[in-house]
Amino acid sequence: MPRVFSGIQPTGELSIGNYFGAMQNYVKLGEQYGREAIYCIVDLHAFTNPAAYDKDLLTQRTFDAALTNMAVGLDPEKVIFFVQSHVREHTELSWIFTTQTPLGDLERMTQFKDKAGVLESIPAGLLMYPVLMAADILLYKADTIPVGEDQTQHIELTREIARRFNHTYGDTFPEPKAVYARDALRVPGVDGAGKMSKSKGNTIAILEPLDSIWAKLRPAPTDPARVRRTDPGNPDKCLIGDYHKLFSDLDTLDMIRTGCTTAGIGCVDCKKALMPGIERTLVPFQDRAAELRAHPDTVRDALAHGAQQARAIAQPIMQEVREKTGLFF
Amino acid sequence: MPRVFSGIQPTGELSIGNYFGAMQNYVKLGEQYGREAIYCIVDLHAFTNPAAYDKDLLTQRTFDAALTNMAVGLDPEKVIFFVQSHVREHTELSWIFTTQTPLGDLERMTQFKDKAGVLESIPAGLLMYPVLMAADILLYKADTIPVGEDQTQHIELTREIARRFNHTYGDTFPEPKAVYARDALRVPGVDGAGKMSKSKGNTIAILEPLDSIWAKLRPAPTDPARVRRTDPGNPDKCLIGDYHKLFSDLDTLDMIRTGCTTAGIGCVDCKKALMPGIERTLVPFQDRAAELRAHPDTVRDALAHGAQQARAIAQPIMQEVREKTGLFF
Repeated sequence: MPRVFSGIQPTGELSIGNYFGAMQNYVKLGEQYGREAIYCIVDLHAFTNPAAYDKDLLTQRTFDAALTNMAVGLDPEKVIFFVQSHVREHTELSWIFTTQTPLGDLERMTQFKDKAGVLESIPAGLLMYPVLMAADILLYKADTIPVGEDQTQHIELTREIARRFNHTYGDTFPEPKAVYARDALRVPGVDGAGKMSKSKGNTIAILEPLDSIWAKLRPAPTDPARVRRTDPGNPDKCLIGDYHKLFSDLDTLDMIRTGCTTAGIGCVDCKKALMPGIERTLVPFQDRAAELRAHPDTVRDALAHGAQQARAIAQPIMQEVREKTGLFF
Repeated sequence: MPRVFSGIQPTGELSIGNYFGAMQNYVKLGEQYGREAIYCIVDLHAFTNPAAYDKDLLTQRTFDAALTNMAVGLDPEKVIFFVQSHVREHTELSWIFTTQTPLGDLERMTQFKDKAGVLESIPAGLLMYPVLMAADILLYKADTIPVGEDQTQHIELTREIARRFNHTYGDTFPEPKAVYARDALRVPGVDGAGKMSKSKGNTIAILEPLDSIWAKLRPAPTDPARVRRTDPGNPDKCLIGDYHKLFSDLDTLDMIRTGCTTAGIGCVDCKKALMPGIERTLVPFQDRAAELRAHPDTVRDALAHGAQQARAIAQPIMQEVREKTGLFF
């Protein structure tokens, strides 16, 4: 049976872009793989993002990332769900890989070059990030890594690190494969200007109140070809049409397609018709989130239990590494 | 009271160069500072020295480094003496410092440039070495670091890392000072061609049998001005003279100075006169080493106990770092 590993960045408020792009898939994989699905909130990686890292917010963001994932259905009783820094072996294995990874391999990473290019002073963590990521994955001998395509190169590096280790010390690690979820969706931002992303300020948060969501949708752009109310539109070229595909039932999808393409309904009608689907999807998450927030120990206990389970897998693997590399124990 | 920290490389057989250059001083500082003297066999650093690292020998070398230091008088009941990889917090703190240390600061290190310059592929560990070293020291809030002068730049970097952390997170770490032992001696190799060092193959091991030592001393070069037996020599310009200063009592020193400068004794006589001092110094070490080797659990237990004591200091300091940096706990 494959073992799934995924790192979850504790970068604050999670959006419906995060939900449809990744979290929904984590829930699904969790139902499929149970204890072989390992989800790790990567607080140690958060430091390498100077734009996102805030010492006064990281603890809260880590908690919120856990709470929101649990609220949307990630079941810590079924999968293994924990915080990276709670399992000390991550940095231990990372150091060993650091000693074996050529600097040139790290300097070649596209993400490093992109991020370093705009910085005056480049923190060493930015260069070393993919080594810690390789340790995150290989510490559990995970072989199935659901990621976005921007992580392809890092997974390839992880495979090389595994290969190099196996070559020197004998067969130890699998060479993990990136899997791109078929139904991971690229959700457009409410400004209609590309992907939903916090840095662009165009997000709808999973835990956002419905009136606040409506306040964002009401002025949102629609199919630019529909200048007048009487012009017919195309829901496939419309932000609101995209959102309907995420949230609405088939009857509603049918109604808005006919209404839009025949100019039978206006864009405001179409936006109003979106709200029941959003409500049906998000309100149960929000209710569960409110319940978890009222009982924060539920989240804390789940993470503590998850860290225990993660350590139970990681410790014998790390022990194998210590023996093979010659560490004294 | 100051807190002393020193890292001991597990690079195999220790020489009298190591003894007079560092180990003797560790024993002395240990008697002076007791529990505030922390000695760590840095097995995680050993990986960054591709010339020294051997996966099949590292465990043994770590054990031997412990045994030899104990044999020459380092008392694990008095000081804190342990193996780096036994205290997981070293790599954890190292990662946090990695995220905060500019790459440029590391690339500027003279040792990195020297070592990297001769390598075709530079392992990332070579660049990151001084960050782990800073973590080693600051994990114990140590402020007094007995080092060789080749480490001055790394200690300066450690100070900068401490300053940077204190600036961002509030006063946390001391800025450690390098101390150069007044009586740390630069011991020449038996080939007379500079410092005693394993890479030059010109060492006398602490645990070397006396007949083997004699076999090295007999052909060793002496004052080059003494071409004939009848030429007077100068013990201050002679390798054997230097060794006498390390091993011999005042009577012998007086005898060989007179004998050499008046051509009263020959170089072989002078070498023979050196052996009693060597015997007096090394044989007790060798006896203790044989005893420890016959009871390896004495060494293992001492290191396990030392790791416990080290963790007792490191864990609350690491917890302070976790709280200040926003790690979730």
